[in-house]
Amino acid sequence: MEYPMDETDKQIMQLLQRNARMPVSQISKEISMSQPSVKERIIKLEERNIISGYTAALNLNKLNRGTTTFILLKTEYCQELVDFCEQAWEVTDLFRISGEYNYLIKVQTASIGELAEFQDSLMKLGPSKSHISLKNILENRILL
Amino acid sequence: MEYPMDETDKQIMQLLQRNARMPVSQISKEISMSQPSVKERIIKLEERNIISGYTAALNLNKLNRGTTTFILLKTEYCQELVDFCEQAWEVTDLFRISGEYNYLIKVQTASIGELAEFQDSLMKLGPSKSHISLKNILENRILL
Amino acid sequence: MEYPMDETDKQIMQLLQRNARMPVSQISKEISMSQPSVKERIIKLEERNIISGYTAALNLNKLNRGTTTFILLKTEYCQELVDFCEQAWEVTDLFRISGEYNYLIKVQTASIGELAEFQDSLMKLGPSKSHISLKNILENRILL
Amino acid sequence: MEYPMDETDKQIMQLLQRNARMPVSQISKEISMSQPSVKERIIKLEERNIISGYTAALNLNKLNRGTTTFILLKTEYCQELVDFCEQAWEVTDLFRISGEYNYLIKVQTASIGELAEFQDSLMKLGPSKSHISLKNILENRILL
Amino acid sequence: MEYPMDETDKQIMQLLQRNARMPVSQISKEISMSQPSVKERIIKLEERNIISGYTAALNLNKLNRGTTTFILLKTEYCQELVDFCEQAWEVTDLFRISGEYNYLIKVQTASIGELAEFQDSLMKLGPSKSHISLKNILENRILL
Amino acid sequence: MEYPMDETDKQIMQLLQRNARMPVSQISKEISMSQPSVKERIIKLEERNIISGYTAALNLNKLNRGTTTFILLKTEYCQELVDFCEQAWEVTDLFRISGEYNYLIKVQTASIGELAEFQDSLMKLGPSKSHISLKNILENRILL
Amino acid sequence: MEYPMDETDKQIMQLLQRNARMPVSQISKEISMSQPSVKERIIKLEERNIISGYTAALNLNKLNRGTTTFILLKTEYCQELVDFCEQAWEVTDLFRISGEYNYLIKVQTASIGELAEFQDSLMKLGPSKSHISLKNILENRILL
Amino acid sequence: MEYPMDETDKQIMQLLQRNARMPVSQISKEISMSQPSVKERIIKLEERNIISGYTAALNLNKLNRGTTTFILLKTEYCQELVDFCEQAWEVTDLFRISGEYNYLIKVQTASIGELAEFQDSLMKLGPSKSHISLKNILENRILL
Repeated sequence: MEYPMDETDKQIMQLLQRNARMPVSQISKEISMSQPSVKERIIKLEERNIISGYTAALNLNKLNRGTTTFILLKTEYCQELVDFCEQAWEVTDLFRISGEYNYLIKVQTASIGELAEFQDSLMKLGPSKSHISLKNILENRILL
Repeated sequence: MEYPMDETDKQIMQLLQRNARMPVSQISKEISMSQPSVKERIIKLEERNIISGYTAALNLNKLNRGTTTFILLKTEYCQELVDFCEQAWEVTDLFRISGEYNYLIKVQTASIGELAEFQDSLMKLGPSKSHISLKNILENRILL
Repeated sequence: MEYPMDETDKQIMQLLQRNARMPVSQISKEISMSQPSVKERIIKLEERNIISGYTAALNLNKLNRGTTTFILLKTEYCQELVDFCEQAWEVTDLFRISGEYNYLIKVQTASIGELAEFQDSLMKLGPSKSHISLKNILENRILL
Repeated sequence: MEYPMDETDKQIMQLLQRNARMPVSQISKEISMSQPSVKERIIKLEERNIISGYTAALNLNKLNRGTTTFILLKTEYCQELVDFCEQAWEVTDLFRISGEYNYLIKVQTASIGELAEFQDSLMKLGPSKSHISLKNILENRILL
Repeated sequence: MEYPMDETDKQIMQLLQRNARMPVSQISKEISMSQPSVKERIIKLEERNIISGYTAALNLNKLNRGTTTFILLKTEYCQELVDFCEQAWEVTDLFRISGEYNYLIKVQTASIGELAEFQDSLMKLGPSKSHISLKNILENRILL
Repeated sequence: MEYPMDETDKQIMQLLQRNARMPVSQISKEISMSQPSVKERIIKLEERNIISGYTAALNLNKLNRGTTTFILLKTEYCQELVDFCEQAWEVTDLFRISGEYNYLIKVQTASIGELAEFQDSLMKLGPSKSHISLKNILENRILL
Repeated sequence: MEYPMDETDKQIMQLLQRNARMPVSQISKEISMSQPSVKERIIKLEERNIISGYTAALNLNKLNRGTTTFILLKTEYCQELVDFCEQAWEVTDLFRISGEYNYLIKVQTASIGELAEFQDSLMKLGPSKSHISLKNILENRILL
Repeated sequence: MEYPMDETDKQIMQLLQRNARMPVSQISKEISMSQPSVKERIIKLEERNIISGYTAALNLNKLNRGTTTFILLKTEYCQELVDFCEQAWEVTDLFRISGEYNYLIKVQTASIGELAEFQDSLMKLGPSKSHISLKNILENRILL
């Protein structure tokens, strides 16, 4: 891998992972490094696209989208599916996968009733199989 | 749902979703609202746990963890599995699901070879089935 | 849950569950409460829709419909299926479900031969899978 | 079949199916037959075990058990399973079935989270597969 | 069951099962009963359709049809399938079955290569799954 | 194939297949050949093991064994299974097969309830899957 | 089997299997046999088609085709599939197989991304299932 | 890819693929290049490990190993399986794969009966599924 990162880079990334809004001044204190150096390193991590962005984590329960479901889909209408998913607000993730089904879709709905409606609208694209999450144990975790 | 949010709340959330490090001053300009009001609203969204945090999006390709795989696992050793996944740096997500398998694990490895090693270490917990992502089309997207 | 029920309500419901035709006078004796109070409580349970009705349990063996079968069906013609099942006297239950199949149908036929005919008529709606009950061990049981 | 039933028997059964608490006097009016004759017929239907009982239909949503799930289970511990289900208040139905799985269990829980707990307790008995009901379309319907 | 058979009937059936061409004279000796009585009993077993016929067991290996295969088929063209199988000399048995597939077909071909041709001709009727017999351990055995 | 058969051999075999008890005199008439020649040919077919025997076809419905079921079984206890099946009067056929399951067992029971008992006794040998025959369409047919 | 081979034939074949370009002179030395005899034997092995050819083993990693995948396909368009595979440079092996799927295809692509494209082009022929090789442990090995 | 190959390299490889025993003199003529240059290029292709060897293609039918079978196996005894396969002369290929089964084994046996024996010996390692090749359509083909 051609992206040398030292321990300091890692520390900065860990801090920003936990709180992306942490001001440079605080990072500077936490890792005992001057603010301009911290700034420079953050810019390098961004320029080399190691940090690809900063995002707010929204509580989907509070947004009335607390039911997580994974749908495995087998379709020959690949472009239609991608277009459909891009339009559908329920869809948060879409993967082209190996195995028996060719797509994995992650959806967030208000309830399992709403999920039925979503799945009905998918039906014309091909057979699908749904796995409802009974408990979200770990999410979006990246151990550095 | 008991969490009234107006259009302004939504606009702030959309801005922070796209760039969690956007300064209050810029948000203030974008939505034509005073900085103290913006600050107050952000704090309220945080207090009501609608915004649950801010996180840096790391480029897993650059971190030598660019291979995404979904593993479906059937185990009767639920606690052991949760403990195992919490320790394993490859695991980014873990869900207890309905269906034939009781867990869905999302892992990020350097290569498909490394994936084999990870799956071997899971084997004592029960039968599993892996779906390698051939293409990550949408990820962590929340349409407001 | 917003439906406070005390022990007395529960006792009344248990009695009516076991014998829906039990007269108020007998319930009154069994739980040592005046008849008007019993009547009032029953009416409240009905009004709050906790008791949604009273029904005769018919012996399907005696009605020549003693073979119970569960059919899992995968269809994209959802409305047609619902209409079909509503018309079909063999069908006692219909559920929209998660998983690989999208409907679970419970049917009661005279014999396994008759079941074949029913399944043939379903075939145009999509692939199905039948599980014949070899023994009905518990049915419609609600423990209070 | 050795259970001759005439149209009048059927009418009485239909009335009692819809409302098991309907007084004999009302049935008498509805089908234009004397009360003693109605009474006699009901007793005969009960004695011949065509009507096997009368039961109150309880609203499971109001009893905080509104989530319906079907669990298919493969076990070699048949007696243990039957004992377990008889004790478990979540279980309303249990069938020994043909096919890949040997039991079908119908459970009613407060939520999908509670379902996970129930399924965990089943795990020692063998592999299972759950289908959560997204919509209960027809239930306990007997067309005469 | 309304077909009383005594031990003598059973003995006669066992002898005919092992060798359907055994003359009445020999049966008579084996079970120590007069020839007319034996004859009468055989006729009764035939008339009551307990013995439905006598057939020569042909050695399929010697007839160049030594490869046994079971094909499970899912079709919505039931009548076409039955007609097809009746015409096909490879097919020895056909059953309408419960489960995921609706027909089980037993075929005898000269080789596994010939099997491929047969399966190709079935394909237009629906998806199928073949199980080749590696060893025929017990066949057409009826223990009396 | 090293077993030359001419048309006359085939005709004899077809007659015996349809009625294994047909006397030589009748065969002789049907195919216009002298009785000694017919006898000689039958003996040759038997000696060359093309005809391996003659058997009575028993009506399993009349013997209270009218329910046909196919059980697919996956076991690592191959010898135990073969021994078990040889003892079990319900089993008429046993095949070692290719695919996911390694044995196909054909059983004849009085009812589907009796089938459950049989399957329970198999359970210690490994997972199995049952397909109940809803209709026996063709059986033991050999087209010459 | 009608192809008698002695130990010397076997030794020659083993040497050529390991290095097909080994000169006759070297084989001659290794097995202590005159060069003309060696030559004659090789010609005989070729004429009897026991050795069907000699081939260079190419390193697929170096040819940018290092990802091995097995695709199981269910199609009713058999000839189209064979034609398609013959044209497709990704395909190295094609087998008509027993079981649920009727073809097994072995493909070599540059990456798992390229695999997705290949599978998309197969889709119109029928449902398929892919197994990506995580590690090629033994390949094309023939133990003599 | 860092392995530049020109058209001439490709031509040489194609010739050697078709006939690995082709003398340098003939290659030289076919592609109109001096023998020393051809020699040099072959050595370079070998040194850079683009050509990894030369092998004799043996006719497995003539070696009494003409039945090709693919076995999918699920095991937690990975090392035992690899050791077992290395010893087993029936095994020609072994792959660690993604999906429900973790190994794909290619075996060559004399007959389907011999296959049963091989599969029995695998059974202690875990559940397996066999696909017998009915027809080997393309084998070991590398299009350059």
